[in-house]
Amino acid sequence: MYHPVRIWTLAFALIFSGCCMAAAAAAPTYGDLLGATKPGDWRDTDPANTLYLDIPGGRVVIEMAPAFAPEHVQNVKRLVQEHYYDALSIIRVQDNYVVQWGDPDNRHATPSSARAVPPEFDRPIDPGLPFTRLPDGDVYAPQVGFTNGMPSARDPREKRMWLAHCYGMVGVGRDVDPGSGSGAELYVVIGHAPRHLDRNVAVIGRVLKGIELLASLPRGSAAMGFYDKPGEPVKIAHMRLEADVPAAEREHLQVIRTDTPAFAALTESRRNRRDDWYARPAGKIDVCNVPLAVRKAPTLP
Amino acid sequence: MYHPVRIWTLAFALIFSGCCMAAAAAAPTYGDLLGATKPGDWRDTDPANTLYLDIPGGRVVIEMAPAFAPEHVQNVKRLVQEHYYDALSIIRVQDNYVVQWGDPDNRHATPSSARAVPPEFDRPIDPGLPFTRLPDGDVYAPQVGFTNGMPSARDPREKRMWLAHCYGMVGVGRDVDPGSGSGAELYVVIGHAPRHLDRNVAVIGRVLKGIELLASLPRGSAAMGFYDKPGEPVKIAHMRLEADVPAAEREHLQVIRTDTPAFAALTESRRNRRDDWYARPAGKIDVCNVPLAVRKAPTLP
Repeated sequence: MYHPVRIWTLAFALIFSGCCMAAAAAAPTYGDLLGATKPGDWRDTDPANTLYLDIPGGRVVIEMAPAFAPEHVQNVKRLVQEHYYDALSIIRVQDNYVVQWGDPDNRHATPSSARAVPPEFDRPIDPGLPFTRLPDGDVYAPQVGFTNGMPSARDPREKRMWLAHCYGMVGVGRDVDPGSGSGAELYVVIGHAPRHLDRNVAVIGRVLKGIELLASLPRGSAAMGFYDKPGEPVKIAHMRLEADVPAAEREHLQVIRTDTPAFAALTESRRNRRDDWYARPAGKIDVCNVPLAVRKAPTLP
Repeated sequence: MYHPVRIWTLAFALIFSGCCMAAAAAAPTYGDLLGATKPGDWRDTDPANTLYLDIPGGRVVIEMAPAFAPEHVQNVKRLVQEHYYDALSIIRVQDNYVVQWGDPDNRHATPSSARAVPPEFDRPIDPGLPFTRLPDGDVYAPQVGFTNGMPSARDPREKRMWLAHCYGMVGVGRDVDPGSGSGAELYVVIGHAPRHLDRNVAVIGRVLKGIELLASLPRGSAAMGFYDKPGEPVKIAHMRLEADVPAAEREHLQVIRTDTPAFAALTESRRNRRDDWYARPAGKIDVCNVPLAVRKAPTLP
C-alpha cells in the first residue's frame, strides 16, 4: 500500500537554519521532537476561556482569544451561560469554506446580552503580546507568525495585528454593517484558508479538538452551503464553558507554546522535511500549514 | 440570519489594476462577470481526458493534465479501462489533508499495466504551454498562476514548472522511491493546500465536480486517516473514462479558460472584493483561492 504523504510520522528537523544547511545524519523526527518537549513547552488551557460545542457526532473544543476580540469573547461567554446556543443548530456547511451555527429560522430572539459590539477585526501591536514570526513571507500580510498558540499577522507600518483565517479558526458571523456581529452566529474555517476575511471579521479563537466532526458534515445544498431541507440542520446538544463542566468531565488539554526553542525546532522540521519520502524539502512554510500541537495533560489536576 | 461571508454572490470587479484604483460606482459582481462571459471564454472538457469516479454518494469528475504527467495519465487510463479501480475502495480520509483510494488489503494484484513510471513531479517550462501569472507572489514558488485551467507554479531559474497542490487537486500515491508511483493509488487534496508536496509527487489533474462528496466522508481513525475498521472503506462503484460512457450519461462540463481577459477580470474581482460586506479588500490572492469555474455546457452536442 502506498503512503503518498507520510508527513505525520516522519520528519527530520533542524533548528531554524534556512533552507540549505545539510541535514544531520540522524536528525530527530517531528514525533521525536514532540516527544522530547519539556513540560514548560506546553501550557494548560484555561477553563474560563475554553468552549465545548457538543453535537451528535461528539465534542468540539474551542480556545478563545480574548486578546484579539475581548468584547466578542465576553458576548459569547454570556450567550453560553444563558444557554442561548443550546436551542440552535449548525445551519451552514459550505465546502472548502466554513461551518456555521446559529438560529435556523430566527425563532429565538437574540438575547440582549448578545448586543452588537464594536468591530474587533484587528488590534494594536503590543510589545507585551508575543509574536513568533515566520521567516517565509505571506501573500496577504507583511508579517505572519504565532501569538499565544494562534496564527497571527502584523502590519508594522500600520502598527496593527490580527488573527489569520487558517483551517480551524473560529469567527463571528456578521451582516453588512461591520458593527453587526454579536457572537449569536459563529463559524469555523474548514477549507483552504480564506485569508481575504482577515481584518473583515472578528476572530475569536481556534478549534483545539474535534474539527473533523465539523469538516465531515454533509454540505448544504442551498446557496453558500446553507441547509434548506427539513432535518438537515444539525442540532447543537449544548455549548458550554469548560469552567461550568464538572472537573471529571473536562478535556484537560494542553497547547504547545509558540514562543519556545522547541516550537522553533518543530516548525523547522516542517519547513524542511528531511525524511526519506521527500525528494525536495520545501524550505518554506505557509503560516496555515504549521501544526499547533494539542495534547491531553499528562498529569491531570 | 447573518451571512459572515457572502463572497459567492457579491463581488465587485475591476480589470487588473493593482490594489488601489477606486472602485467604479456600479462595478459588476463576480456573478455578473461570469454571466457576461462569451462562449470562447470556456472550453469543453475532452471525454478522452476526463474521469468519472462513482461512489455511493454520487459522481466525482476529474480532469487530467497529461501535459504535466503524461506517463502517469496513460497508466491511469489503462487501469480504468481494465476496471482495476472498480474492485477498490477509498481507504484513507485524513482531515485537512487527503482522501485516497486504492486496494484496502492488497488483495488485487497490481496489473502489469500499472508498472511504475518515471517521476513526473515537474516539467520544463515550454513557451507553448500557457501560464497566466498571478501578481501577488507565493510562499512556496517563485511564480504561480494557471495553465490550462489548473493552478501551476514555475521556477524560471531552473526552467521548470509544475502543478500546485491546491484543494481538489489529484495526485499519485507513491512509496519512498520517487519512481514507485504507478497510479494504482490516487489521492485528492481536501484541506489547506499541502504545497510542500509540490515537486514531490506526480499531480495528474483536478476535481471538476463532486469534491464535496469526498471532503465530507468520515475521517479514518487510524494513523494518517486510514480506515481500519471493517465496513469503513468506501467501495468504489466504478471509475470510468468519460469517453467510455454513453453520450446520454455524460456530464458535458465546460471549464473557464484561464488565458482570457474575462478570467483576468474574474480573478481581479476576487483579489479586491468590492461588495458592501468587505470593510477591507485584500488586494492580493493566494493561487489556491482563485475560483476556477466549471459549468454544464449550455448547448449539449
